[in-house]
Amino acid sequence: MEQLCKRILEEGKALNEYVLKVDSFLNHNVDPKLMYEIGTYFKEYFSARGITKIFTIESSGIAPAVMTALQMDIPMVILKKQKPNTLTEDVYQTTVHSFTKGSDYELTLLKKYISDKDKILIIDDFLANGEASLGAVRLVETAGAEVSGIGIVIEKSFQKGRKCLEEKGYDIYSLARIKKLGKDLIEFL
Amino acid sequence: MEQLCKRILEEGKALNEYVLKVDSFLNHNVDPKLMYEIGTYFKEYFSARGITKIFTIESSGIAPAVMTALQMDIPMVILKKQKPNTLTEDVYQTTVHSFTKGSDYELTLLKKYISDKDKILIIDDFLANGEASLGAVRLVETAGAEVSGIGIVIEKSFQKGRKCLEEKGYDIYSLARIKKLGKDLIEFL
Repeated sequence: MEQLCKRILEEGKALNEYVLKVDSFLNHNVDPKLMYEIGTYFKEYFSARGITKIFTIESSGIAPAVMTALQMDIPMVILKKQKPNTLTEDVYQTTVHSFTKGSDYELTLLKKYISDKDKILIIDDFLANGEASLGAVRLVETAGAEVSGIGIVIEKSFQKGRKCLEEKGYDIYSLARIKKLGKDLIEFL
Repeated sequence: MEQLCKRILEEGKALNEYVLKVDSFLNHNVDPKLMYEIGTYFKEYFSARGITKIFTIESSGIAPAVMTALQMDIPMVILKKQKPNTLTEDVYQTTVHSFTKGSDYELTLLKKYISDKDKILIIDDFLANGEASLGAVRLVETAGAEVSGIGIVIEKSFQKGRKCLEEKGYDIYSLARIKKLGKDLIEFL
């Protein structure tokens, strides 16, 4: 997605070889029109698969995911990082390690919001080691549903996430694929 | 907002006198079209005020807030509940108590995303005791900017949030105002 890559080069900042700051348009100060256009790209790529729901992980995946869900006219499910005390019914849970925060969380989904007939599109803002996406995949498959695809806004292709997911047969569509980060260096694939 | 109140009556569940579950359309399984319509209501009510940015609090406020920002063609800022290690620059922070989780968090805003010229619309999914909205107000005013209004999807009018905010002179526009909750009872104002 040319426009996204342009914004990354103009506004993004590599803090080191692993961390890319894009807080000016994606995960703190958010550009809603760019989120809508990201939604259009995901809709066009994934539209012919009979997808019934979009899953995303709180909180930075929500903006691009809800814009995609709006254009595909299907619900979006926000997978929670802890079980809110209002979720009193049966849940699926799986432990996910966050490298950014250096801690684990319990990715949580209410059982009543997925059935074995569902075809799920997982959308997230970043793909690095793939922990979050793999966690979402585990929840979907535990429920007997299908992962129809994975949509990623920014993929750090030098980390193992894509490889782990592709080895399991999932189709990953990333709008920006980063080959290398370094001091004032952002290189795309 | 009639349509919202209808969904609350049809799908909402009062767990007790304080807690209302609306996880089927607002904060877990999310209806993107309803989020868009909520955005239209907020845009129409707040449009003539020269609002420059929308602030919301991760994570359940993001979907209605980004739909409002899209229609008002202004950025949305997601106030974080903890300081991500990618936020390395100067921040404003304030401590907020969460009654739902029974713990405190540090509401965090990068200084560069607000100026004293900004006119801010705060949007959140619930208003109960007002802690989250008051925290957002503190961040805005610490930066010397103006709180032009507060948009709430569901207000629990029997709790003190509206009163606290109105006493400080803020204009609160709530799309559903709940007078009373109880066992299988949801009563609107």
